[in-house]
Amino acid sequence: MATVKFIEYEQASPEVRDVYDDIMATRKTDRVNNFWKALAVQPELLRRTWNGVKQVMAPSALDPLIKELVYVAVSVTNGCTYCINTHTAAARLKGMNDAMLSELMAVVGMANQTNTLANGFQIEVDEPFKDGGRGAG
Amino acid sequence: MATVKFIEYEQASPEVRDVYDDIMATRKTDRVNNFWKALAVQPELLRRTWNGVKQVMAPSALDPLIKELVYVAVSVTNGCTYCINTHTAAARLKGMNDAMLSELMAVVGMANQTNTLANGFQIEVDEPFKDGGRGAG
Amino acid sequence: MATVKFIEYEQASPEVRDVYDDIMATRKTDRVNNFWKALAVQPELLRRTWNGVKQVMAPSALDPLIKELVYVAVSVTNGCTYCINTHTAAARLKGMNDAMLSELMAVVGMANQTNTLANGFQIEVDEPFKDGGRGAG
Amino acid sequence: MATVKFIEYEQASPEVRDVYDDIMATRKTDRVNNFWKALAVQPELLRRTWNGVKQVMAPSALDPLIKELVYVAVSVTNGCTYCINTHTAAARLKGMNDAMLSELMAVVGMANQTNTLANGFQIEVDEPFKDGGRGAG
Amino acid sequence: MATVKFIEYEQASPEVRDVYDDIMATRKTDRVNNFWKALAVQPELLRRTWNGVKQVMAPSALDPLIKELVYVAVSVTNGCTYCINTHTAAARLKGMNDAMLSELMAVVGMANQTNTLANGFQIEVDEPFKDGGRGAG
Amino acid sequence: MATVKFIEYEQASPEVRDVYDDIMATRKTDRVNNFWKALAVQPELLRRTWNGVKQVMAPSALDPLIKELVYVAVSVTNGCTYCINTHTAAARLKGMNDAMLSELMAVVGMANQTNTLANGFQIEVDEPFKDGGRGAG
Repeated sequence: MATVKFIEYEQASPEVRDVYDDIMATRKTDRVNNFWKALAVQPELLRRTWNGVKQVMAPSALDPLIKELVYVAVSVTNGCTYCINTHTAAARLKGMNDAMLSELMAVVGMANQTNTLANGFQIEVDEPFKDGGRGAG
Repeated sequence: MATVKFIEYEQASPEVRDVYDDIMATRKTDRVNNFWKALAVQPELLRRTWNGVKQVMAPSALDPLIKELVYVAVSVTNGCTYCINTHTAAARLKGMNDAMLSELMAVVGMANQTNTLANGFQIEVDEPFKDGGRGAG
Repeated sequence: MATVKFIEYEQASPEVRDVYDDIMATRKTDRVNNFWKALAVQPELLRRTWNGVKQVMAPSALDPLIKELVYVAVSVTNGCTYCINTHTAAARLKGMNDAMLSELMAVVGMANQTNTLANGFQIEVDEPFKDGGRGAG
Repeated sequence: MATVKFIEYEQASPEVRDVYDDIMATRKTDRVNNFWKALAVQPELLRRTWNGVKQVMAPSALDPLIKELVYVAVSVTNGCTYCINTHTAAARLKGMNDAMLSELMAVVGMANQTNTLANGFQIEVDEPFKDGGRGAG
Repeated sequence: MATVKFIEYEQASPEVRDVYDDIMATRKTDRVNNFWKALAVQPELLRRTWNGVKQVMAPSALDPLIKELVYVAVSVTNGCTYCINTHTAAARLKGMNDAMLSELMAVVGMANQTNTLANGFQIEVDEPFKDGGRGAG
Repeated sequence: MATVKFIEYEQASPEVRDVYDDIMATRKTDRVNNFWKALAVQPELLRRTWNGVKQVMAPSALDPLIKELVYVAVSVTNGCTYCINTHTAAARLKGMNDAMLSELMAVVGMANQTNTLANGFQIEVDEPFKDGGRGAG
């Protein structure tokens, strides 16, 4: 059980309702996830986090589905159950199918393995990649 | 300095050279990264890891650039310096520009933040997302 | 279900009871948490861990409530469900209210985000901060 | 070397300078850390992150020094070199001395150990703490 | 509930059955764990992962029980509930008793604590250990 | 550079020298690692940590070399550079050769990969393993 009480729409202050309304309008849904109901214990935290997520996940240099796949990849690496489930569901809504999900997991699994090996042997970064290949000079 | 000696091409056994040749041919380059030179201390580990990476990163249900972005996202979340630098460089070669990199970091940063908040408040997964939205039933 | 059997007070050896008694006396309670009952499978592990926790959490250069908030922050970052719940409860007993908890989570969330960004862009430590600002010289 | 080019004040767009000015004014300093110079590659990321940090670290239900100690604790748990150094320095500026730093590390170290033990034995949360002690009912 | 549907033996394709048969023969059991049933959503991921695990866990320079203890140690450090439970059970089958399990947890807990302290104080690697003691020269 | 000043033997208080002497006698060496010199900023932290490490790493139900391999495995998973280097060196002194190191890394890498996959698909623990196979009943 969550360590704070969820704020339901009916009990919410106008400031919180305002954010809830924006969430539902932006996501074209009539439900507000538990995540936001927990954050609403501090309206400023709710508003700042929602505004951040809304901006970051909007279409831009990267496609929204790609962003969602990245979100799942991070959540899996962190082992966050809430986030894995909700973002896997969100990715499905944006077009991810089972084949894509399993490919994604294959990449995430491989990356976690090779990250470990690179750390384990304390491998020095190759000269040409020392600045992530941006060619500083 | 790495905790094992790198195996250079000249000193490598035929078994190791065979993998090095496949790496260079597949990646259309004439260099073998330090990562593989460290793994070569155990030829079987080298071959299995390279075959895995080669399969996983090949085009499939997901585009190679998307896979590379996911690889960077995982490496950043794990804080693996070697992996961040080499895969950021690889992503640039596959078409990632600075705008895409900064968008990617914005998503990865936001995901790490909201993962934390979901854990911190011990939020229960919403009923409709309990199976990652696959609609078990 | 835990991977070891809990040792209840009634079944405990005198050595284990001795630690249990100290836990209950120090914490002014008549219950021993599951954590200690699991560690009791190895009495030395139980005693050493309890003595460490007792010393570390006692009043010192830092206030016990601050220490408890730090404990929660670490547990959240590690995603340890047992620890988040028990230390959030302990922090409440020491005076943490909902406003403080949500502020704490806001800091922990922000720190996890900026940690990610610093790693992600592989940012060099600024010259004046290279020794954590202790002014080596 | 960072994987993006730092944006120095002289080269910065008015939008970026605006944030830099606010950082220097808020922190009463004439330098902008590398962190912000890297984020400036995407002005929106810079502005959103700075506004978040500024809000979160301001005095509120928790004292700014406590927040800084929590920031260090999270950074240490994540092993983020950049963040450990810069936030340790920031904590010193806000009043942390060596005794407080070593106490802080003692708590962070102990928390990481007991987190591990709780995970390792898969210990169930004690009934009274299942909601972080908030007494749901 | 898992985010993909488990593939049971009866519904499995010949390619998947082939792997399931090898798992059961190698492990001398008549059951296939949920882990493999989830991976079977992508037969190539199933086969590659099983072949890797089979090779890596076979007797070699390290004894199978030692490998299983290491597997548990990593799973505990990552906080992976599925992996902790299944590999603790596997270690028991290979000869681990309660005394060994609690010793293992004591080491894993201590390592997580000292890792934290080494990070927290940003301690430089001692000269003689800079290459993991292999005596490069 | 470390965020605290190292305490050298010559400057150390009798309390600290006492621990340093025990470290050198126990390890049959005439050097004290940087790790202990940093912890000495708080003598109680130094003593408690050293006593813990000494007890935990002593021969018991598990062989000292096995414990050292586990220490390396945890340090690699946490990506702690100081710890990877010093414990790899310590393992070599206790008999680990290159073949064992590469086998160890193969296991650690595989464990990190399968941990990820188990998390990623949110796989339920199989009924017989729910208590780590201890057969509660």
